[in-house]
Amino acid sequence: MTTKTIEKNSLIGRRIPKMDAPDKASGKTRYIGDLNVSGQLYGKILRSGRIHARIVRIDTSKAKALPGVHAVITAADVPDQRPIGVNKDHMPLKGDKVRSQRDEIAAVAADSEEIAEEALKLIEVEYEDLPTIFDPRDALKPGAPLINDFKKDNVAMVFDYSHGDVAQGEAESDVVIEDSFELHYVTHCCMGVSGVIAEFDASGNLLLYSNTQVPFLHKREFAELLNIDPGRIRIIQPPIGGGFGSKLDIYPFEPIAIFLARATKRPVKLMFTREEEFLASPTRQPVILTLRSGVRKDGSLTFRTVDTLHDNGAYTSWGATTPFVMMQTFSSLYRVEHCLYKTTAVYTNNPYAGSFRGYGNLQATFAIEQHMDKLAEAIGMDPLEFRLKNAQEAGEVTGQGMHFKTCGFKDCITTAAERSDYQAKRRAYKAAQGAPGSVKRGVGIASMLHVGGGAKIYPSDGCGTILKLDDFAHVTVMTGASEIGQGSETVLAQLVCEELGVPLGSVTVVNNDTDITPWDVGVHASRTTFIAGNSAIGAARKARDKILNAAAKVSNLAAGDLDLRDGFIVRASDGQVIMPLAKMLRSLHFSDKAELVMTTHYYEPPSVHQDKGFKGDVSAAYAWATQVVEVEVDTDTGIVTLLKVWAAHDVGRVLNRLGIEGQIEGGIVMGQGYAITETLMIENGVCKNPNFRDYKLVTAPEIPEMDITFIETMDGEGPQGAKGVGEAPAICMAAAVANAIENATGTRIYKLPFTPENVYRALHPALAEAAE
Amino acid sequence: MTTKTIEKNSLIGRRIPKMDAPDKASGKTRYIGDLNVSGQLYGKILRSGRIHARIVRIDTSKAKALPGVHAVITAADVPDQRPIGVNKDHMPLKGDKVRSQRDEIAAVAADSEEIAEEALKLIEVEYEDLPTIFDPRDALKPGAPLINDFKKDNVAMVFDYSHGDVAQGEAESDVVIEDSFELHYVTHCCMGVSGVIAEFDASGNLLLYSNTQVPFLHKREFAELLNIDPGRIRIIQPPIGGGFGSKLDIYPFEPIAIFLARATKRPVKLMFTREEEFLASPTRQPVILTLRSGVRKDGSLTFRTVDTLHDNGAYTSWGATTPFVMMQTFSSLYRVEHCLYKTTAVYTNNPYAGSFRGYGNLQATFAIEQHMDKLAEAIGMDPLEFRLKNAQEAGEVTGQGMHFKTCGFKDCITTAAERSDYQAKRRAYKAAQGAPGSVKRGVGIASMLHVGGGAKIYPSDGCGTILKLDDFAHVTVMTGASEIGQGSETVLAQLVCEELGVPLGSVTVVNNDTDITPWDVGVHASRTTFIAGNSAIGAARKARDKILNAAAKVSNLAAGDLDLRDGFIVRASDGQVIMPLAKMLRSLHFSDKAELVMTTHYYEPPSVHQDKGFKGDVSAAYAWATQVVEVEVDTDTGIVTLLKVWAAHDVGRVLNRLGIEGQIEGGIVMGQGYAITETLMIENGVCKNPNFRDYKLVTAPEIPEMDITFIETMDGEGPQGAKGVGEAPAICMAAAVANAIENATGTRIYKLPFTPENVYRALHPALAEAAE
Repeated sequence: MTTKTIEKNSLIGRRIPKMDAPDKASGKTRYIGDLNVSGQLYGKILRSGRIHARIVRIDTSKAKALPGVHAVITAADVPDQRPIGVNKDHMPLKGDKVRSQRDEIAAVAADSEEIAEEALKLIEVEYEDLPTIFDPRDALKPGAPLINDFKKDNVAMVFDYSHGDVAQGEAESDVVIEDSFELHYVTHCCMGVSGVIAEFDASGNLLLYSNTQVPFLHKREFAELLNIDPGRIRIIQPPIGGGFGSKLDIYPFEPIAIFLARATKRPVKLMFTREEEFLASPTRQPVILTLRSGVRKDGSLTFRTVDTLHDNGAYTSWGATTPFVMMQTFSSLYRVEHCLYKTTAVYTNNPYAGSFRGYGNLQATFAIEQHMDKLAEAIGMDPLEFRLKNAQEAGEVTGQGMHFKTCGFKDCITTAAERSDYQAKRRAYKAAQGAPGSVKRGVGIASMLHVGGGAKIYPSDGCGTILKLDDFAHVTVMTGASEIGQGSETVLAQLVCEELGVPLGSVTVVNNDTDITPWDVGVHASRTTFIAGNSAIGAARKARDKILNAAAKVSNLAAGDLDLRDGFIVRASDGQVIMPLAKMLRSLHFSDKAELVMTTHYYEPPSVHQDKGFKGDVSAAYAWATQVVEVEVDTDTGIVTLLKVWAAHDVGRVLNRLGIEGQIEGGIVMGQGYAITETLMIENGVCKNPNFRDYKLVTAPEIPEMDITFIETMDGEGPQGAKGVGEAPAICMAAAVANAIENATGTRIYKLPFTPENVYRALHPALAEAAE
Repeated sequence: MTTKTIEKNSLIGRRIPKMDAPDKASGKTRYIGDLNVSGQLYGKILRSGRIHARIVRIDTSKAKALPGVHAVITAADVPDQRPIGVNKDHMPLKGDKVRSQRDEIAAVAADSEEIAEEALKLIEVEYEDLPTIFDPRDALKPGAPLINDFKKDNVAMVFDYSHGDVAQGEAESDVVIEDSFELHYVTHCCMGVSGVIAEFDASGNLLLYSNTQVPFLHKREFAELLNIDPGRIRIIQPPIGGGFGSKLDIYPFEPIAIFLARATKRPVKLMFTREEEFLASPTRQPVILTLRSGVRKDGSLTFRTVDTLHDNGAYTSWGATTPFVMMQTFSSLYRVEHCLYKTTAVYTNNPYAGSFRGYGNLQATFAIEQHMDKLAEAIGMDPLEFRLKNAQEAGEVTGQGMHFKTCGFKDCITTAAERSDYQAKRRAYKAAQGAPGSVKRGVGIASMLHVGGGAKIYPSDGCGTILKLDDFAHVTVMTGASEIGQGSETVLAQLVCEELGVPLGSVTVVNNDTDITPWDVGVHASRTTFIAGNSAIGAARKARDKILNAAAKVSNLAAGDLDLRDGFIVRASDGQVIMPLAKMLRSLHFSDKAELVMTTHYYEPPSVHQDKGFKGDVSAAYAWATQVVEVEVDTDTGIVTLLKVWAAHDVGRVLNRLGIEGQIEGGIVMGQGYAITETLMIENGVCKNPNFRDYKLVTAPEIPEMDITFIETMDGEGPQGAKGVGEAPAICMAAAVANAIENATGTRIYKLPFTPENVYRALHPALAEAAE
């Protein structure tokens, strides 16, 4: 008799292809654009023809008369509409005034998109222009026109944070520097344009096919908006063509689709064109940021004072709240005794701003990491040594109350520096600044801190899981956490496989239907692997216990002496097979006991809601990273070429190596676009480049060589030791590139992006001025 | 301060509109015909042009060349196909021979149904005819042609059951009678025609949109058929346009759609035309039944001998297994000491037979309840008294091992008789048989026994439930039990409401996706309310306990002193409101404990698998009914008009009065059709009436007045005391009408249906013969 034995074979750290990849690569995935339901009408939105104007008259009669048109609605047709957005300052349909180019003033539901488009052209609107504000500084001037009636002073939101006493810090400083930084507009450029299908059943229950990243919060918010019981709203999320934070808020097209569905009693599908996606999806908000920093000659930081002015646009979405994250970088990336942080977000007639991967941290890091270079230079210290001296370490609690239980920050700095030969290159390139030739090289370094264990900005930051095994040991994991392309489905399956010893192909993850999946706060703050991962592990361990206890009875071994491997129950000590898992499950099901293995679990991280002063340990863990970039700057053309990126990330532990590499690579490229190529050109409130010809997204040939190193600090709370990493890789790039350009050319540029024109103007200010 | 109090307000027994009714009534429900998925092709099947023939040649080249055709397949293209059906005697695509009119020999997938139809016409087939069998008696004759190669003697299946000793019983009898009965073909006539969408993802996982009544069993069966892991098959059930047992087996169109999807790598939708639905969906099988019964002069039954010959058609589906149920009626409806039962199902070239509401019991009851009248008459006893004397009572265990823990049979008999004034009318109509005039009236009575607590014909007869409550006290019930129009969704929601004290609108039932819902054996044997109901109650009680325990802590009352009513937690004694349920749930969720209320439960009834001799207590409870009908017979035309039906049903307890009345009414009408109007006319293997003009379904104007009484025996195992009733109301009708015609005319007719022609021939045998 041969006895089969199975060795322990962990999936953790291996390269696991994404479970959704085959369907996506073969074109089988059904995005919202591919979904059509019987009886469906097509919705289209008429947007403002002006930037800031009173609506004098709207005549929809010709549009209504067009054959195939089922409804034409304006604000007058939905007197019960309620304002949306973070400040509740935004009516979906504008009845009185328009305040920006995107403003929605009417909508049509018709038998086809073509008819709906035709109907839009038949709507007559008469406007009376109003004075405009395009520069946020103008919004605060005395006598400035009021943009949004919600606030009488054009101030949408204010954040104030402090620890220590910056006056004392300044007094203790040997060197103080202050600079202003200007951050630009970019947008998410999701490959899948925004879209929704809204449908009421005959009992008045609402079904939304929506790509929201926060289905459970939106269920409640749509209910408030429509004044119905949240239990009557079901949100199903089709596979998403990119999220990146763009889908954390309700935008007007969603209530408008709902109003059209209500008016027509038919399902209404409303999809953006690519041009609309540029005009009317959220942006990363522009910021004017003034940073004042001090240092002692010994290299210890003394204080920081930060003042930022956010261009909020005409309405308020999550962009106004990015200071939550920005202040963390100022207060806590490096040890600094005294910190004062203030943001004012003001209304203008520009596009309004949402959340975007990194959530303000790209902007904050752009400023702080340039100052780290400048401060080091001012006191004559090597910038690497300077950073190491001030870097946080495990065990520290910052002025903001963040407790770093694991912290690989110094490892990140030294690893990225050593692998890139940063110090030697920096010296050599600096020395070569004055050498002949117009093409210069430079290296730049930047680091970041970001939440890595969720962020308790809502009363709960948890996630629920329901798990069931069928008679064939196939596992269904129902998780509240959505898949937005980040690979959560795969990593959750992998974590469950680790507990239940089944192959990855035996797991189905259900994550897209609020009626089925348990609550989760949503996909943001790099939290899904950490929070939903811990939740899935909890449910899987309960199932494992149930199975091993049952197996113990039939095997005469203790449950603790058993293990689950490769679909079998084995003796843990030597891997000897006791029976197939599926057979055990069937014997439980079909025995007199008649049990199915079904478990539930809810995981809530041990983080806290911050107090009114923004203090408190908001995340269960924190992620760290250092990136070094090497660039080539053509000083004759202003072209900056990114040659290579060395990225060292404290990720707690690598779960899916392929997945996390994809996250890092994608984040670096997104940061590269932010730094060098991308800009949403808004002139007098009008978007000048709403298309992929003029909006320069980084494409494959421009992607640099990358060297990625993972620092595994094995976080005690993290799932298998992992921490969140979704946003981290995009954060350092702009700062590192700015430092590299300075290293290459001796010129520091405080304004993004580093397009050829901007760089050329910075390198040749006199020539640029003369040419104008 | 006013204190709000809430009285206990049970939903049990109330009239609850079906939750799916508004969408169905308003046309919003999306049946499989309304579902279309992106990339979908349309499948069509080429059926045999002959009844029994060898396939000499199939040429598909012209069909393949038609633009828009993506695949044309024959048996030769799927060499790996495996046989389906109860005997595994049925290849989905026939390569060697055709054996019936419906036989599938080729299939096409094309861009539209029209192109697919056109392609079918281009397929050339050459046949060589073979000898046929159309009368099942011919199948057993020496030298009969062999129909299905699976069995060399044309015998598809045999059932033998006995208890006691019929020879002894016959010896003890004062009167013995024997008759032969002939039962005809009918079909389910589901308003929704058969259809399926089959789709493989890029990883080879199969998704079926299917109206199967047994998704979990079919998952395994499709996996065997395709030789893949059952975990790789997901079955989603769109709302069904009628089931009635027709969807308990895999029929060729389903594997064919899968083969087409595999061949084209595209989703394939295959929908029957109405004509195909008549030709190729299952039937209620014809039976020739010989019943020999004995009785003593004192009115006690002595023995029964039953011999039935089933026309199995060319292949074997569940129709062949109806003796499981038929024998119960013979062995156990009335107390009979000696019983011998035998069925032989034989292959013919006729349509093959599936399962159909009542599962053989209409046929068995047709014979036995006519014999009850005849035996009573033979010994000069009132037929009502005769029935009461022999009727089963609570506590009895029958020869077959069925244990009647509750039994309202005698109540059913007396209630139906009294409410209809059966005895007086019967005497009066009998007396009027010879009176002048051609229009006669008659009353007839019949009773039935059917499983009412599931039927353990599979190793488990259980059902799983997963239940979750959201922050707003909205409940999702995920049940393995499918909704096939019977109202299970509503009754399960109602049972959960009863435990959790929430309004019906706060419950969503998810019951149509094998990846999400826990296992259930399927919708058959009138089991769903009983089994899935108990499962749902189990899950709800766990949730209730969790909630009340949490509420006990905050209210300083014992959990047992609390109740849930109308969405509130109240003090049980006086209904005083303690707090809203939703608030309690939110405080659990958002407190430090961070709990969601999610529970799971699996219910397995205390029934047993019968032994090889078909003995054992197969159901957890048994349902009883008596129906009295009053008819008018026009002896000049043979037209039988059903005037009124009095139905008394032991249903354990009424849960949803509106729903159960609908079940009874629908069942009576289905029994009426079987008795009087419906017949699938098969002549020499060819269906002569595959349409609703020639197949006479009962329509609204012909529906009789009904008087329905529920006998509530409060079954101890049943959910809130209820027993299953899905099949019961159809079972008695044919027998009762036969007895009523005899009462009206003095003529007993042993052959169904009672169409004008058949009745006229029976009333005027000489005239009918002379006319031919």
